[in-house]
Amino acid sequence: MATIEHIRHFQEELQQLKARLLEMGGLAEEQVRLAVKGLVDRDRDLIDHVLTNDEPVNALHIEIDSRCFTLLALHQPMAIDLRAIVSAVKINTDLERVGDLAINIGEAARRYAQHPPVKKLIDIPRMASIAQTMLRDSLDAFVRQNTDLAQQVLNKDDELDDLKTQIFRELLTYMLQDQSTIEPALDLILISRHLERIGDHATNIAEDVIFIVSARDVRHHAGET
Amino acid sequence: MATIEHIRHFQEELQQLKARLLEMGGLAEEQVRLAVKGLVDRDRDLIDHVLTNDEPVNALHIEIDSRCFTLLALHQPMAIDLRAIVSAVKINTDLERVGDLAINIGEAARRYAQHPPVKKLIDIPRMASIAQTMLRDSLDAFVRQNTDLAQQVLNKDDELDDLKTQIFRELLTYMLQDQSTIEPALDLILISRHLERIGDHATNIAEDVIFIVSARDVRHHAGET
Repeated sequence: MATIEHIRHFQEELQQLKARLLEMGGLAEEQVRLAVKGLVDRDRDLIDHVLTNDEPVNALHIEIDSRCFTLLALHQPMAIDLRAIVSAVKINTDLERVGDLAINIGEAARRYAQHPPVKKLIDIPRMASIAQTMLRDSLDAFVRQNTDLAQQVLNKDDELDDLKTQIFRELLTYMLQDQSTIEPALDLILISRHLERIGDHATNIAEDVIFIVSARDVRHHAGET
Repeated sequence: MATIEHIRHFQEELQQLKARLLEMGGLAEEQVRLAVKGLVDRDRDLIDHVLTNDEPVNALHIEIDSRCFTLLALHQPMAIDLRAIVSAVKINTDLERVGDLAINIGEAARRYAQHPPVKKLIDIPRMASIAQTMLRDSLDAFVRQNTDLAQQVLNKDDELDDLKTQIFRELLTYMLQDQSTIEPALDLILISRHLERIGDHATNIAEDVIFIVSARDVRHHAGET
């Protein structure tokens, strides 16, 4: 029986859930930022900090899942609230993977720092900046249920893809000209793939936002007429 | 109000949902198998078939999501059924990504076929075979709610990781010795990463199974004492 008190309590819990997801997104994004800063600055202490700092994101991952199941079981929400909470379970998974990818970037950065630099890093920090913005905007779109902002996130994915291709071509040229660059260039290629995947997770979140608000599935161009 | 008729209908719908997930898993696994067969046999027609065959998996992805939300909204399940259906939403996402990864393997295989072979491919088909088995077993574990089988899937992930590292080291040796192998060897490295990620998705599914059955979170070693 849904009393006004019950509804108010549910809405409060939902707001808390969203706040925790934002917090987790902030932590994951910061891990990505620090991993790329560690790469660019060749700062092994910073890289080690990233590599040993996955616990806060992992702890939130478990807590948020638990909140979602409690909300579903106790309040049996319908329609937009149901979609928001099930999507929160998925977004939680996306954010946990972003945290994992920050670790992967840190691991590659640590190996990269053992070689002389292949080149001045310009495009990888650009990719990181775009991926971080996409992640932040997608979560902002989720909390505000803003489909315009979600659509902007989807539009940015091509930029990341183009940069990834450009980085790959450029590094291949280095590898072909000087075999001493092969190992470190491979790590830069892997890092660009990790950043692309962070953008993919932001894209997943943005697609979820459009689904939550409009109950329209924009994946696989299902909404195209 | 849960009548016997209502409960029976719910259980039928849940069985259908599981059957559709199995079907989707079978399709995604077959795409992976064919992409790797196309790579090994240098069969461009087969590779092109994989690349243009993502529609069945994508259509099931949308259908299964819709089934999950209908079940949640109409039946408001509790406890193990609630966990199973929310997990089905996540598993559905995992399987869709496996389908995407089969496409990524196909794309790399198409590029690889444009170069002379770097080496006889032994470890990549082995990785594919392990990843496919993990995927099949994880879905089987989900349908039968079998945590022992799920645990077996988790135990296999290290094998994939070891093979990936071994493949990387071996290909690096080729690249350093003969620069004409750099481009095709890069594609093999990418393919080994895609296969590793397919194993990761099977791992996600296996972890979900343990969570569904025991309500115990095995991620991040949360269950360790």
